[in-house]
This record gives sequence, C-alpha cells and structure tokens, in this order.
Amino acid sequence: MPESFAPPARTLMGPGPSPVSPDVLAALARPTIGHLDPAFVDLMDETKGLLQETFLTQNRLTMPVSGPGTAGMEACVDNLVEPGTTVVVCRNGVFGDRLRQMVERAGGVAVVVDAEWGRAVPPETLADALVEHPEAEVVAFVHAETSTGALSDAETLARIARDHGCLVVADTVTSLGGVPVRVDDWGLDAVYSGTQKCLAAPPGLSPVTFSDRALERMDARETPVQSWFLDVSLVARYWNADGAKRAYHHTAPVNMIYALHEALRRLQGEGLEAAWARHRRMHRALAAGLDALGLAFVVPEAERLPQLNAVWIPDGVDDAATRRRLLDEHGLEIGGGLGDLAGRAWRIGLMGEGARPGPVLACLGALEAVLDRSGGVEAAEPLLDAVAA
Amino acid sequence: MPESFAPPARTLMGPGPSPVSPDVLAALARPTIGHLDPAFVDLMDETKGLLQETFLTQNRLTMPVSGPGTAGMEACVDNLVEPGTTVVVCRNGVFGDRLRQMVERAGGVAVVVDAEWGRAVPPETLADALVEHPEAEVVAFVHAETSTGALSDAETLARIARDHGCLVVADTVTSLGGVPVRVDDWGLDAVYSGTQKCLAAPPGLSPVTFSDRALERMDARETPVQSWFLDVSLVARYWNADGAKRAYHHTAPVNMIYALHEALRRLQGEGLEAAWARHRRMHRALAAGLDALGLAFVVPEAERLPQLNAVWIPDGVDDAATRRRLLDEHGLEIGGGLGDLAGRAWRIGLMGEGARPGPVLACLGALEAVLDRSGGVEAAEPLLDAVAA
Repeated sequence: MPESFAPPARTLMGPGPSPVSPDVLAALARPTIGHLDPAFVDLMDETKGLLQETFLTQNRLTMPVSGPGTAGMEACVDNLVEPGTTVVVCRNGVFGDRLRQMVERAGGVAVVVDAEWGRAVPPETLADALVEHPEAEVVAFVHAETSTGALSDAETLARIARDHGCLVVADTVTSLGGVPVRVDDWGLDAVYSGTQKCLAAPPGLSPVTFSDRALERMDARETPVQSWFLDVSLVARYWNADGAKRAYHHTAPVNMIYALHEALRRLQGEGLEAAWARHRRMHRALAAGLDALGLAFVVPEAERLPQLNAVWIPDGVDDAATRRRLLDEHGLEIGGGLGDLAGRAWRIGLMGEGARPGPVLACLGALEAVLDRSGGVEAAEPLLDAVAA
Repeated sequence: MPESFAPPARTLMGPGPSPVSPDVLAALARPTIGHLDPAFVDLMDETKGLLQETFLTQNRLTMPVSGPGTAGMEACVDNLVEPGTTVVVCRNGVFGDRLRQMVERAGGVAVVVDAEWGRAVPPETLADALVEHPEAEVVAFVHAETSTGALSDAETLARIARDHGCLVVADTVTSLGGVPVRVDDWGLDAVYSGTQKCLAAPPGLSPVTFSDRALERMDARETPVQSWFLDVSLVARYWNADGAKRAYHHTAPVNMIYALHEALRRLQGEGLEAAWARHRRMHRALAAGLDALGLAFVVPEAERLPQLNAVWIPDGVDDAATRRRLLDEHGLEIGGGLGDLAGRAWRIGLMGEGARPGPVLACLGALEAVLDRSGGVEAAEPLLDAVAA
C-alpha cells in the first residue's frame, strides 16, 4: 500500500503549472456538493461572469471546459470545423502544430502558415495565405506560444482573418491573465485557455468563450460535432441555460470550479491591468538577471512573452542534469525545451503567483549556484525594489 | 466582485458526486507540483498500480483520463471504433444511448439491443443480435445503469461478446468500488469509470483500462483516432512510459490525481470485498426503510444495484418541490429521474462515503419528515446495528 502523497516543496517556474496560492488550494478543498445543486448553479453563473471579465468579452457562451487546455483546443476546433472546412493554421511552435493535427482529425483541410520558431507569426504571411486560399473559413493561431515564449499580434492577425471573412480561433493558454487578451475588441470567435498558467489555479480546466458568429456557424453545421463530450451545443444546455431548462450533460468537476472561481476572484481583485503590469515588471527583472548570467533569450525583445522566458542552454551545460540539480538542490522547476527546442533551450515561467519578487530571486540564485556564475540576483534586485511582494 | 464560495452543508445521496472524506479533500489541497516532476511521476505509477488493483486487472494501459466519465466513455469508443465499425450497443437507460451516439459520431454503425429501462440487459438479446450481425466487431454495454439503478450481468454479456469474436466496452462508472468489477476474469477490453461515485473522490477524472487485445486493435487502425485529446496511443506515451521515454501530451490535473490516489488508498485499505459488502449492507437497510415508507423500487430485486436505488415517486407528490425541501430543510441531496424516468422516479445513491449508517438514517429521516410518513428509520436501524459507522 503506497503512503499518502506528500509533495516536495517546489518553486514552479516552468511553463506551467504555476504556483497555486493557499487561498485557492483552500477553496479547492471545500466539501464537494452536487453539480445540479442550486448553490453550485449560482457558482457556475458567477464563474461565467468572472471569465467574461477576464476574457474581456460579453459572449454569452463563456465557460470552463471540463478538461485541460488541450480539451479546450479540441472543443474550439471540433465545433467550428466540418469535413472539408479549410482552416489556415499559423504554426510557429508545438501548439500551432497541435492545432493543425486537430483540424485534420476533424476532417478539415489545414493550410499551414509556417513561421520561425521563437518568433511571432508575421501578419503578412497570413494575409498572403488568405489571398491564395479564398476558400478558407477559419484562421487559427496561438497567441502566446508556450513552446518558445513568442507573443504574436493577435489583434492584427484577427483583423486580417476577419477582413477575409474567416472566423478566428485563438489559443490564449499562456497569455490569459499575463498579457492583454481582448476577445471582443479584437474580434476573436473561439478562444481557449488553461487554468494552470497566469490564472494561477491548478491544472485541469480550460476556460473557453465563443462569439455569436461562432454560435451561428455551429447552428448551421451540416454534420454533428464529432465529439459528444466536447459538443458545445450540448454543454451549453448545462452551462448557458437558465433555471429549469438547465440540462445534465456530464458531472462538472465541482472542486476544480471552486478553485477556478477563487483564482479569478483574486485576479479581478488585483485588476487585470495591474496583473499584466506585474508580469511585465517581473519579466524585466528576470531578464536583467538572466542577461547578467550570460543566458541569451531565444525570442527577440519585441516579440517576447513576459511570462515565459526561453533562453538558450549555454554550451557545455548538460540540460537534464542541470534541471535535476535545480530541482533536487533548490526545489526549483524550470521547463526544458519542447519540439525543435528540446535539449537546446530552457523555459522559465513567470506566471500568476510565480510572477513575484521572491520566485524571481530564488530562480536567479539557484541558477547562479548550479551554473557557477554570479551577478544575476544583483542585476535583478534594483528592478524589484518598487514592487510589493 | 462575488464572495469566496462557501458550499452549504450537504449529505450527498444522489447519483453522484458522492460525499468526499476529509482525508481526500486534504490530499486534493496539497501544493501543486509539476506534471513532469519525478515525485509526480512516481505518484502516477502508484496511481496506476492502485487502479489495476481496483479494476482487478494486469492491463499495462490503466490510467485516469483527464476528464469526467463522459470523456472516458468517449476515449473507449473513439479508440476502438473506426468509420464503418459495427458496434452492438446494449441500451437499457440514458448511458447506453450515450454510447450509441458516440459510436455514430465516431463513424461506426450502432446496432442497438434495446432492453427495458429499469431492467438488466437480457443476455439472450445480445446473443441474438450477434447472430444476426456477424459483422459486429465490438459490443458495448453499461454495467450499472446510473439512470435506472439496474445492474447487468457483465460477465455473461462479455462471454457472449467474446464467443462472437467481439471486443468488449464496459461502462463501470457507477459500479467500480461498489459491486464486483473483474476486468481480467470477465475479459473486458475497454473499461471506463468515474471518480465521483463509489471511488469517493471528487468528480473530474475517468479511470480507464485497456486490454492487450484492445491495444492490438488500436495498433491495427487504418485511420487516426478522431480525438487528439483522447487518442490513447498519445496519452500512453505520458502515462504508460518509463523514464526518459515519458513524453508530454497534456498537463495532467495534478491535484485531482492527488485526490484519486488518496481515495484509492482508502479503498484498498478497507479492501474491495469489504467495500462491496458494505454497499450491500447499507442497501439492505435503506431498502427496508424505503419499503416501510411505502416507496417502491423501479428495479426488481435480483437486478438491483445496491449503490443506486431508484424508487417511484408516490402519486400526488411533487417531484421538484419535494427534492427542494429535502435540500433546503435537511441538506439532503437525492437525484431526480433521468430520461424516461424524469419526474417519475427518484434516485437515491449509497456510494462510497454515502454508504454508511449515518447517511442512510439521515436520508430516511428526511424522507419521513418531508413525505409526512413514518417507520423508515425504525425499519432500517436493526439492519445497521452490526455495522461500524
């Protein structure tokens, strides 16, 4: 019989999950109640409202999908794509390629716009692809590529897509809560995120939001959505209905929704603008420290995501052994590279509760010790002075 | 800004979620660590071992799907069904029909064996269907129909299916942990369950197990699994791999796995046989009490699921108003009817921590008060005497 699990002490500065605050963990552990209990239904409504405020949208259909970000991604693709639908997919990292795979599994035709890994998607390449493919009905892109730390210009990409009459699918898994995401202003139609990044809740849910244009497209489908679990027209009868019309679809992950509700309350309490500014400030301090340690960023400064810092692994440094020492000797988790960057880069997250002075200094101090270099903490400290812990 | 959520006190005796013990809630709230952390990988291995013991299987591919039971159902269907695959689906309630819908959305041909709601699936009807449909490759049935409380003879249904060369998909969402489920002895090939019933963990995960025969069929597929999120060949690289070969697929719901691990430890600590016996004893006590209150069971005694007791709503009793009073005045949740039984039956769960003398008596006492009847508690008490709380 295994022992009860006691997790080791960790500072989570990888690509997610990010550290979860004691308040959110306490909410997670409140007694489970029924998923159709009137008190839980009220909580669902509040959670929906908090998600609307976080996505900056009035979309009626805004809710957490009962699965990780990958499930939210599949919900957005599967509900908008029918066999034969042409989707232009921008690919500048692992998650763009995942979008392509999902489009193809849904029977769609994926037109891939390839961009360099570690760079934003150049808007002109999307515009060119749409001129070349007037049959395209949907454009999909990753706002913040978790595999490289590159931030694309979602507003411009979305405008180009809409100018060509396309619906817009946007991956905001790593961006939401950390940098501006303006669903309504930018005209995004199907947007998914994750709870375990800048929203600072445990992993397991995927907030999504669908515009009325997306709902019209779903209503006009000629074929059923291939997934019953992720069929938004069915899920909406549970999440988007009033009173007696609310219909059972599946048993909601009750305690995870307690945690998400609490994490969203905290975020709104701080204010979205303040949270974005905090992620930027912590990034500037971390970047100064990494620079002093001689660690070079993968992504050019103007395209860099504050909350995910990909740096090249220095020559002669063993990737796995170094990360293992950071974990074992300093309790620090940073991420390895993914896809093309595996073994070549590290990914240092500054997400949610990780974007605080304490974790920034702990991370730089641990890197100094393990890489036997100095000056990182010293370079970062002055930039943290003005910031509350 | 909404308040932090404080769930009302509830005794959960509906069709799930069931009550979650303080130990499991405490495990749920332990600090989140990374999903690739060596300590978490060890926890995954232990959880897999505990699930094998719970499913009574040696299947290498045994793991929790990162979504509710509905996601586990879809994982089983989507991985075994290709376009054109004929699947005989036994339907004696809501969940059998959900299986049919998923088979059809996966491009399969569903041959439905209809059985009366509130009854077990008659094995001879399955045998007849398989004679009539020699092209069938898969048989799917619900072991314990959560919508009616009927328990089918999974062992016999599986034997008939295998005699006809079919793979067997079995829904054990409500059965696992409450009545015997012997995956290897019975020759079940793709089995899914849920955490929020007799496993006594919060809702949100779906334990699944696949036989080597099922894996061979997946390896021989001519088309990709339509869901990327639920493609078991991809998920297995994360859950079923050793050391450096372990590959990222999605971010596991870390805290939910803490809770499942703790709940499975508790179940193994009690012993599966003891847990099954406890559910039977609690059922006998509850049934005696319901009988004394004049509430008649939907399901004949021999086909009755101890942990889900469907009773006819007495004439002249208002369904919704009565359940609302039970909730508001007694903090008691029981379930309404689903599908054909909506408005006609109640479903009283005795699952996991709900299958204890305290909840049984609380339920009967509340029903006495709200229905203005008597004798229920008195009839049940003698049957509870010998049982530890």
